[in-house]
Amino acid sequence: MFSGAQISLYPMTDDFVGVIMSALSALDPYRARLRIETDDVSTLLVGPPEILFPAMRDLFAAGARSGVHCTLSAAISRGCPGEPDDAICRSEHFSGPMPPMIERQQAAHAAVAKAPLTDVFSVAQFSLYVMGQGNHMDEIYGCIDFLKNSGTFEKSKHFCTKLNGDAGALFAVLEQAFCRFGPPEGHVTIDLTVSANSPSAR
Amino acid sequence: MFSGAQISLYPMTDDFVGVIMSALSALDPYRARLRIETDDVSTLLVGPPEILFPAMRDLFAAGARSGVHCTLSAAISRGCPGEPDDAICRSEHFSGPMPPMIERQQAAHAAVAKAPLTDVFSVAQFSLYVMGQGNHMDEIYGCIDFLKNSGTFEKSKHFCTKLNGDAGALFAVLEQAFCRFGPPEGHVTIDLTVSANSPSAR
Repeated sequence: MFSGAQISLYPMTDDFVGVIMSALSALDPYRARLRIETDDVSTLLVGPPEILFPAMRDLFAAGARSGVHCTLSAAISRGCPGEPDDAICRSEHFSGPMPPMIERQQAAHAAVAKAPLTDVFSVAQFSLYVMGQGNHMDEIYGCIDFLKNSGTFEKSKHFCTKLNGDAGALFAVLEQAFCRFGPPEGHVTIDLTVSANSPSAR
Repeated sequence: MFSGAQISLYPMTDDFVGVIMSALSALDPYRARLRIETDDVSTLLVGPPEILFPAMRDLFAAGARSGVHCTLSAAISRGCPGEPDDAICRSEHFSGPMPPMIERQQAAHAAVAKAPLTDVFSVAQFSLYVMGQGNHMDEIYGCIDFLKNSGTFEKSKHFCTKLNGDAGALFAVLEQAFCRFGPPEGHVTIDLTVSANSPSAR
């Protein structure tokens, strides 16, 4: 199954090029497991979720540690019927049949409990889209249940859910939301914004 | 049908607060037709597509005219089964049955031909998601056909399509993509990034 993301890092500073170039070294440990292509709007990361989410986390955390207000925007996708399969995307996440919702939620919580600490506080807002089936809202409501008990839930907003916490926990929650809701072989996407150091009150 | 967007404007400058505050006055002509709520991550706009897309266009163009590298990120949604209906969202776009694909493409081209000029060159990248049905890719491929003949098509990328041109044409194309593909009463979303003044080569 093909999986990956189009991501952009936005440091709100005159030196945005410097912050981005410096943060990019955070991707180095993942480069052998990802296909990476950059243009003027976004950087494509192709690879399995267990590499993709830690790579996005470390890139974002590196940008946020500059101290400037910084956001990461990402369009994350798996199983799009229009995309070719790719060996680099092989993942532990999508083998076997889909367990019952309660088991998937428990497994998601267990995975989040093992998330590393980054000491970067951040706020995330995202929408989960499940395509190709009539009962897509059941999967979304099941995911929202998981989010509400994840320790990172801030509030429901129109069109999306807002989380906050350590970037380690946030990206672990996002990886679980992406992988465990919607069928294992289904077409699932996330529209994600992560923000740090905003001067606005939450 | 409920429709709207969560939007964020990212000016890559030390004075990002000044650029955002100044650009916000571009929303004034639309305020009576939109519900608007802001927090530290995004601004919610609730209203019909024929107000929503021009409002996003004028906000983005105002930011871009500052001359700094500026992006607008938006999660746009209509017909989400989890959202309440709202009279402010009443739209011309979603009445009647769904015409055949070719007629919808022709109507979309006719609408784009009437787009105003903003004299702001920009680049847009977006994904269209159609939920709640098994043949969602047919609608997406029909939309991509329309995009390729819209005069704004730059290239297909993994997970998204990239456009460029005057912001007037771009937001007209986006409004047509959002309204004419997927069933009139269906759950359809767009994950959008629009960018101006990037120092990176295209």
